[in-house]
Amino acid sequence: MSLQFPRVAVVGKYQDSPSGAAVESTREVIADIADFLRVQGCDVALAERTAQTTGLDTYPTLAVPAIGNECDLAVVVGGDGTMLGIGRQLARYGTPLIGINQGRLGFITDIPLGEYQEFLPAMLHGAYEEDHRSLMHGTVLRDGQPVFEAFAMNDVVVNRGAVASMVELRVEVDGRFVANHRADGIIIATPTGSTAYALSAGGPLLHPLVPAWALVPIAPHTLSNRPIVLADPVEIAIEIVAGKDASASFDMQSVTSLHHGDRIVVRRSDFRVRFLHPKGWSYFDTLREKLHWNEGGV
Amino acid sequence: MSLQFPRVAVVGKYQDSPSGAAVESTREVIADIADFLRVQGCDVALAERTAQTTGLDTYPTLAVPAIGNECDLAVVVGGDGTMLGIGRQLARYGTPLIGINQGRLGFITDIPLGEYQEFLPAMLHGAYEEDHRSLMHGTVLRDGQPVFEAFAMNDVVVNRGAVASMVELRVEVDGRFVANHRADGIIIATPTGSTAYALSAGGPLLHPLVPAWALVPIAPHTLSNRPIVLADPVEIAIEIVAGKDASASFDMQSVTSLHHGDRIVVRRSDFRVRFLHPKGWSYFDTLREKLHWNEGGV
Amino acid sequence: MSLQFPRVAVVGKYQDSPSGAAVESTREVIADIADFLRVQGCDVALAERTAQTTGLDTYPTLAVPAIGNECDLAVVVGGDGTMLGIGRQLARYGTPLIGINQGRLGFITDIPLGEYQEFLPAMLHGAYEEDHRSLMHGTVLRDGQPVFEAFAMNDVVVNRGAVASMVELRVEVDGRFVANHRADGIIIATPTGSTAYALSAGGPLLHPLVPAWALVPIAPHTLSNRPIVLADPVEIAIEIVAGKDASASFDMQSVTSLHHGDRIVVRRSDFRVRFLHPKGWSYFDTLREKLHWNEGGV
Amino acid sequence: MSLQFPRVAVVGKYQDSPSGAAVESTREVIADIADFLRVQGCDVALAERTAQTTGLDTYPTLAVPAIGNECDLAVVVGGDGTMLGIGRQLARYGTPLIGINQGRLGFITDIPLGEYQEFLPAMLHGAYEEDHRSLMHGTVLRDGQPVFEAFAMNDVVVNRGAVASMVELRVEVDGRFVANHRADGIIIATPTGSTAYALSAGGPLLHPLVPAWALVPIAPHTLSNRPIVLADPVEIAIEIVAGKDASASFDMQSVTSLHHGDRIVVRRSDFRVRFLHPKGWSYFDTLREKLHWNEGGV
Repeated sequence: MSLQFPRVAVVGKYQDSPSGAAVESTREVIADIADFLRVQGCDVALAERTAQTTGLDTYPTLAVPAIGNECDLAVVVGGDGTMLGIGRQLARYGTPLIGINQGRLGFITDIPLGEYQEFLPAMLHGAYEEDHRSLMHGTVLRDGQPVFEAFAMNDVVVNRGAVASMVELRVEVDGRFVANHRADGIIIATPTGSTAYALSAGGPLLHPLVPAWALVPIAPHTLSNRPIVLADPVEIAIEIVAGKDASASFDMQSVTSLHHGDRIVVRRSDFRVRFLHPKGWSYFDTLREKLHWNEGGV
Repeated sequence: MSLQFPRVAVVGKYQDSPSGAAVESTREVIADIADFLRVQGCDVALAERTAQTTGLDTYPTLAVPAIGNECDLAVVVGGDGTMLGIGRQLARYGTPLIGINQGRLGFITDIPLGEYQEFLPAMLHGAYEEDHRSLMHGTVLRDGQPVFEAFAMNDVVVNRGAVASMVELRVEVDGRFVANHRADGIIIATPTGSTAYALSAGGPLLHPLVPAWALVPIAPHTLSNRPIVLADPVEIAIEIVAGKDASASFDMQSVTSLHHGDRIVVRRSDFRVRFLHPKGWSYFDTLREKLHWNEGGV
Repeated sequence: MSLQFPRVAVVGKYQDSPSGAAVESTREVIADIADFLRVQGCDVALAERTAQTTGLDTYPTLAVPAIGNECDLAVVVGGDGTMLGIGRQLARYGTPLIGINQGRLGFITDIPLGEYQEFLPAMLHGAYEEDHRSLMHGTVLRDGQPVFEAFAMNDVVVNRGAVASMVELRVEVDGRFVANHRADGIIIATPTGSTAYALSAGGPLLHPLVPAWALVPIAPHTLSNRPIVLADPVEIAIEIVAGKDASASFDMQSVTSLHHGDRIVVRRSDFRVRFLHPKGWSYFDTLREKLHWNEGGV
Repeated sequence: MSLQFPRVAVVGKYQDSPSGAAVESTREVIADIADFLRVQGCDVALAERTAQTTGLDTYPTLAVPAIGNECDLAVVVGGDGTMLGIGRQLARYGTPLIGINQGRLGFITDIPLGEYQEFLPAMLHGAYEEDHRSLMHGTVLRDGQPVFEAFAMNDVVVNRGAVASMVELRVEVDGRFVANHRADGIIIATPTGSTAYALSAGGPLLHPLVPAWALVPIAPHTLSNRPIVLADPVEIAIEIVAGKDASASFDMQSVTSLHHGDRIVVRRSDFRVRFLHPKGWSYFDTLREKLHWNEGGV
């Protein structure tokens, strides 16, 4: 097989104010991976921010839109959070991503740092499993006007204020009334997000091939307010009915101090995120590993 | 609008050995509905068993296959169990069903007995909401040979024996290993079944438009063995690994004394069940009513 | 039987800035109950704040400590929140409380407003069920020094900040390490509080006679971090390990912006709250009514 | 310190029809432990059944009642099930037990086989933590007459028949009606049993010092039928109201084919089981280890 991804960008973990030791270690890792890709025959570039964080100047640098326009692949080094961040931005360009986990195994960064030399060559030549993840587009409306917009790969979360006892939320699906929830909040999770916060709050796992969202109430006052899975072509609207200082978060990008009457509207984006995994990869293997299903029960 | 369903079958609740009073009351209800349909201009027939149970002889009777072949609509009087039973059998013919609940509101029998005169005329003339429900086809394989087959509209349940402490089940999806579950059992539920046993066991609600099954472990030994939602084109196989007297049930049609190595294989059927609801019907209204979401919380 | 509670205080719902109509209606209710108690032969006083809120000046008024010192009984009119507030303050005096619910049935305000004339006379003469509720005393320690103290009848809650993704909490019981929880927070609930927030977060119901607290994690990252019930003589300490803007609430009295290293220490108070119920009252009847156990399942 | 337990019985795992290799390995383990105890200065006996299973004839053998009457300590080698079985029988004699786990760490067999030589000497001389576990006594009544009686250290479970859809159970506590549960069954668990089946069914963990039972419904039809913790002096009665082939199990000792109207009555036994643990043992350390709380979350 010939090289399927001639132009590759390497993207590292964004760190707000990393320690010197962390910078040092990240620089080395990024440089090694970039060099390895070059040796495989790829044209290699670094994400602009990654170059800045690490101080590496041996490769050309590209801003994210340029990566999307000019590269055939992004190799991401970090954790699931790093993948989510860059995945959200590259979705509109259709650029596929490979995730190398710098720490412990992630749900979506599934190549251990110590093993990329084993896996990447075959993947670069076309031997991989492709896995598409849906993306949500969320809007906060005030008096009918959009005041905030964002994409989310994991979840949109509407939450009570820190010292409020609860928030009351009116949920509508395609304009139909579902329920008024009094709760700590509500999570709308994608299949990707179903293994994150939604799982902690009692939501189900959604296989990535299920075209659906999970709507998961957090500590609902009504005990029968159970998680509900909705087909993803629907439009979900959540209106703040009562409660002080409610907030909305889109993959942790937050809008605070929502007003009563504000509406958070969520739709499926037309874009999807493309993840590539080593040949033979199975979603279930990752689940089993991450959720310790193989360690015997009580 | 002209009459959209000229030929209508009336199907009553099947009762094993009903009391005289129950027969009396059912006969009256069935006769009233049949008469009402006739007055609306329909050719009316009774399901064979319904005619036998009630002793009504004023309408022609039809066995279920004949209803499927000759009628445009089945009006079912009973509870959700009655609907499931006849729905499973009529799915292959594409005959739509309207459910009239004889007792309390059901999830799928949503016209109260006292109100059918209000709702049926418009529906007979084409004013209705149509709602398609997926159907599972399950097979029990022993030494690779099918020993039992059945359709299920609600769920396929694999259970430990009554006095066994647990059953160990190997789950595979499209030939990929998912996990070995030690538990009381596992439920594979359709969206229709997600409001039944699966809900009691901690599963999520699945909206009928979600093309998926919920795989719900019952009292799993491993606490992280959470419900998982799978896209419904998959084939799910459950193998009995350990545990005495395990059983498999397909909408309560049971096979007992399963052997180690027996496999229960579940696929989506090509048939779907067609339910008709009054204009303006909303799945969420039924949920809210049945799950008491409107009564305030704790 | 002779009058067992000669001196009775009437306590109304505290309202921050009530509407004119609410004041009017509360005044009438309080006046009626006070008059009724006077006719039964009691010396009646009004809680100071209740007199202020309602403008009633026909009875002597007493501040809460004076109620504790001088009255044999407090008749509380409002909801469970009103009972919790006054109960916490009267616990040290041993004054018993009777709760009349102004709205819907409460867990602890169990005499409907329309029925107090039926129940109170017998209770005033000694025909009642007595029900003791434990009380927690909580302290926030910073650098080993107490910076906040409060009693709680329902729960002590340690919570993440509004837009933080989680808080990490180190839990110790009697100086022994229990676990580091990464979660939205942790609830320590009394039996009284076990029917409130803790129940929404997945905690068990604790019968009031169980001398124990429930420690309930809220949306824990580790799925096996299940609620744990601890004997109530223990001291529970929760230390903020990580997470921005964590807060601690004691029956909703909150301390915000906790620092890493701050410790919330909870012990059982020596005081208990005394509730009186009509003869024949059963905790289980209230549970069944409030949790809709009698309405049939799914 | 002088030897605190001069007369010690060694009890092994009871095995129905063990393989030759298993017998061989067990014989060696039991002989080594017995020899080690003798060297420490103890008078050593073997449980009768253990001597039979292993064929060891170098020590005197004692039936369980004789162990209770004549020994100061039982050293139990096996798993939690072995401890439960012998613990139930020795409770009436007040004989303390030390558990050595032959396989993986148990909740109550907490000395690894490879480390008993390190821990036992100090324990034999009085350096240990003592841990008392409550015991339930259960009776099945038919037409008011007892037809079965048993002790349980873990739980009493009332279950539906294998192919019945549910069982309906009327629960009473001290003669007061609690609820009618339609469910797969109900578990009444001791604190010891709270880490076993009850945990899988959604029950809370109960610390051994909490004088209470957890009443845990299994897959209840009514979603608000949550686990409830009851003070252990109460009498709990469960009556079979509906459902075919219900059974009752007392630590897995089962009575099947219960009739409608049969009552299972559970009280706390006057006996308690005494477990001894190495100095410094903490219940929470075992929980953390067994429930994988230290392995990071999702």
